[in-house]
Parts: sequence; structure tokens; C-alpha cells
Amino acid sequence: MSERLPILRIGENLLVSIQVDLDDQTVLNLQDDLAEQVVKHGARGVIIDITAAEIVDSFVGRMLATIASISRLLDAETVVVGMRPAVAITLVELGLSLGDVRTALNLERGLAILSERSSARVAER
Amino acid sequence: MSERLPILRIGENLLVSIQVDLDDQTVLNLQDDLAEQVVKHGARGVIIDITAAEIVDSFVGRMLATIASISRLLDAETVVVGMRPAVAITLVELGLSLGDVRTALNLERGLAILSERSSARVAER
Repeated sequence: MSERLPILRIGENLLVSIQVDLDDQTVLNLQDDLAEQVVKHGARGVIIDITAAEIVDSFVGRMLATIASISRLLDAETVVVGMRPAVAITLVELGLSLGDVRTALNLERGLAILSERSSARVAER
Repeated sequence: MSERLPILRIGENLLVSIQVDLDDQTVLNLQDDLAEQVVKHGARGVIIDITAAEIVDSFVGRMLATIASISRLLDAETVVVGMRPAVAITLVELGLSLGDVRTALNLERGLAILSERSSARVAER
């Protein structure tokens, strides 16, 4: 049975933590839920925490890229945090360099990236 | 029968609201009219409001990208506002990530983006 992953709000950003093996339907649900929440809350950023993910295969890799593209269309930036060294190696070996996806070491740095972007917007005004 | 969509002016920007199903000729008319108005009024920005569009297929997606390219050549930036979550997902599934098109949650944020850009220009002078 597929599940719905919880989406948390931190200020202007949304946070999803991936802790379970994902099946197709869970991924589709997550994409739908995230897109809806981004619009509903006018979110500026989406942080996907994969600290707990020991294995990221091409399926999850593509999901990360798709979520980033959807979010960008809805004017929110996606940052993937907590990538393990082995996961990075696997992704490159799979030929998934996650072009548009920003990454950060951990949640704190991820939030810093998004808040920089946010204040850059304010400063431009 | 094809129609001509109304183009409104808000300061230095033009606003088009897409509320009907578009046929080919209406799209071509819109591209012509927009290009003409951008030059006539020296518009800095073009806002395309798709709040009312429940379905954005590849035809409309390509139109948005084309209008953005034409406007850019005429020195105006295009911002698409009011994209629904389902529309963002569809566009990504169609492989249309609208490369150069900026998006914003709503008209207010869209205008803010254009006015940021405008003041950045003034600062450069």
C-alpha cells in the first residue's frame, strides 16, 4: 500500500524527509502534495532530506529531478540535503547528475541557501 | 472563429489573462498583438496570467515559451503567474520545463519581480 509522506513547513519553505523505500504511487502522491502545498503557502523553497536514504537508485534520482522542475515552475527552489557519499557516487555512475537540483550538506546549510536567495530578492527591491 | 485576447497595461508592463481555450489563430494573433504593444509602449515586462487555465497542454506550453522568446528579443521580460499545481506537473511530464520563462505565484509577486528588475536597471545606470 502506498503512503503519503508528511510535508513540514519551516517559514517560507517546505521540508520532506525521505525515510522509507518509495513505491511509484508514493512518489506520485508526493509530487502532487508538494505542488499543491507550494502553491497554497506560496513557498519559496523545498528541502528534501535524504539523510536516512541509504540507497538512492535511478528511480529516486529522477524523482528528485522531477520535483525540482515542478517546483521551479511554481517559483520555488529545491535543495536536496543529507546526501551520503555512496549515494553521490551511485548517482554519478547512473549518469544522473541532477542538473538543476541544488544540494547542501545538511538541513541547516540548506535553509541558509534558501534564505540567501530570499534576502537577495528583498535587496533587489 | 478566432478571437483576440485583450492586452492590459499596468505601468511599464503588459498583462494578458488567458481564460478561454486557445485555437491556433488566437495564439498567433496574441503573439502579434503582444509584440506590437511591447514596442509601441516600450513595455518592460509581459505578465501572462493562467490562473483560469485548468489545462495547459503542450500547445499552450510552447506558446508561453515562444512569447517569452519574442518579448526577450524586444527587451521585455515575461512572467507567467497563477500556475496551478496540476499544470506544473503536466508541463514537467510533457518535458516542457519552460526554460527561460519566469514564474510567480500570483499577479502581485509577478509585478514585484518585474519592478525588481526595473530598479536593478536604474541602479546600473
